[in-house]
Amino acid sequence: MLTIKRLSLDDARTLIAGASEKAREIGVPMCIAVTDESGNLIAFERMDGGKTTSVIIAQDKAFTAGAARKATHEYNAANVPGNLAFGINTEVGGRLSSVGGGLPVIVDGEVVGAIGLSSGTPQQDMDCAQAGIDYFLGKRQ
Amino acid sequence: MLTIKRLSLDDARTLIAGASEKAREIGVPMCIAVTDESGNLIAFERMDGGKTTSVIIAQDKAFTAGAARKATHEYNAANVPGNLAFGINTEVGGRLSSVGGGLPVIVDGEVVGAIGLSSGTPQQDMDCAQAGIDYFLGKRQ
Amino acid sequence: MLTIKRLSLDDARTLIAGASEKAREIGVPMCIAVTDESGNLIAFERMDGGKTTSVIIAQDKAFTAGAARKATHEYNAANVPGNLAFGINTEVGGRLSSVGGGLPVIVDGEVVGAIGLSSGTPQQDMDCAQAGIDYFLGKRQ
Amino acid sequence: MLTIKRLSLDDARTLIAGASEKAREIGVPMCIAVTDESGNLIAFERMDGGKTTSVIIAQDKAFTAGAARKATHEYNAANVPGNLAFGINTEVGGRLSSVGGGLPVIVDGEVVGAIGLSSGTPQQDMDCAQAGIDYFLGKRQ
Repeated sequence: MLTIKRLSLDDARTLIAGASEKAREIGVPMCIAVTDESGNLIAFERMDGGKTTSVIIAQDKAFTAGAARKATHEYNAANVPGNLAFGINTEVGGRLSSVGGGLPVIVDGEVVGAIGLSSGTPQQDMDCAQAGIDYFLGKRQ
Repeated sequence: MLTIKRLSLDDARTLIAGASEKAREIGVPMCIAVTDESGNLIAFERMDGGKTTSVIIAQDKAFTAGAARKATHEYNAANVPGNLAFGINTEVGGRLSSVGGGLPVIVDGEVVGAIGLSSGTPQQDMDCAQAGIDYFLGKRQ
Repeated sequence: MLTIKRLSLDDARTLIAGASEKAREIGVPMCIAVTDESGNLIAFERMDGGKTTSVIIAQDKAFTAGAARKATHEYNAANVPGNLAFGINTEVGGRLSSVGGGLPVIVDGEVVGAIGLSSGTPQQDMDCAQAGIDYFLGKRQ
Repeated sequence: MLTIKRLSLDDARTLIAGASEKAREIGVPMCIAVTDESGNLIAFERMDGGKTTSVIIAQDKAFTAGAARKATHEYNAANVPGNLAFGINTEVGGRLSSVGGGLPVIVDGEVVGAIGLSSGTPQQDMDCAQAGIDYFLGKRQ
């Protein structure tokens, strides 16, 4: 029998709060998704003005980071012609995202969920995702 | 040019708060989705213990109620063999839901979004959706 | 070698004009799609106030009526438990519609395209589809 | 509550008329799609001779430009190996287009919809999309 650690809804809200704060700071309304370690959605918020396409993209980034236990920008780095992982972005029916902005949430060395953002540049999405994780981990100390 | 009214993120949070309260009261952890008037997700929460299938079902119910401006239980009533609407549940790539639990949110006679719940019986889902709307409309007075 | 007769864009506009006129008459803003004999879209209009779900549903009804050369309400009649065609509405990736409102357009005994409507009751959708065809055929005399 | 501006059907017809005129001028029959600000189709025309694949491509370009509030050729510029946005073209179930020819329609600084063309070279598609917007904005003055 396995025992799985998984983000709670309260944890997900904390992650979103930290990411939103950063998004407001840089002035980019974001779509923010938090999934569990299996990639299934726990919580989602589209800030007023977030992009409609980002509703799905944010979820797919969090899905990828949680279910594959890997940041989407790491898939991005591997997704180059000639590399054996090239084309990975069309896997899982196209849900596997190789666009920066999805990060696994790691507690005690274990991936317990993930956060994905979309609406800014990939770098802005990554920065806000990281801000969400920093805020969440800071609260746990 | 048309002018459209749409739920804000704050409105969506209020709808979820009201529905969650009812779900806690009846002891059934729910997945709760709120979409805009075009069916695109604004906010989502899976209460701890909510079903994984319900992550999609709640979203599809809210999508249907918002984008079709009709409660999913009304589609349910029409979706019987021999009725001209039979089979409606497989439309829009299967996203159109004819299972009770999705309600349009109506303000000043206009559909401005929708709420969809899943994890209980359809009647429980409908009761919690209605509780969310009652709470939201009560706050607006 | 085969020779195929197919609606032109002008023909499609005429079909939409006739259907729109009827939709205005009954006071139901509709989504109206016209496809060719292969089920591929030629023209589409969403009247102001037409439902967002109907954007796809109208297209799928016209697709079905054109590519299957059969009215969607005829599939509806066959799509009953126990009938060998039961479940037909999930075919072609769910695009085959068994909801009334899609009609083939027949010229000289040949299906040259189709019209599909959505946003009203199936009967209203069917009436407007028929009005579009009547208007189109009347213009050809 | 948010207030959203959206193209009407009349606006969509004007955009298509302007784009068609340019397409006739350069002698390339096009598929032309106009969506609202959420990416949902308002109007579509396939000029006689337009490509069948372009029925979907034109719609996806307009969907992208409207729902992401960004020209598809801007996604094209970002969609190169090594860039953090590489692979963006398979997002949203593959509907996000990074092929030139989709432009947002901006009125008073707000994206109110989009136009997408397909059947020519991407540059021809872009030129006709721009012609549609120029014609539409000219009429508004």
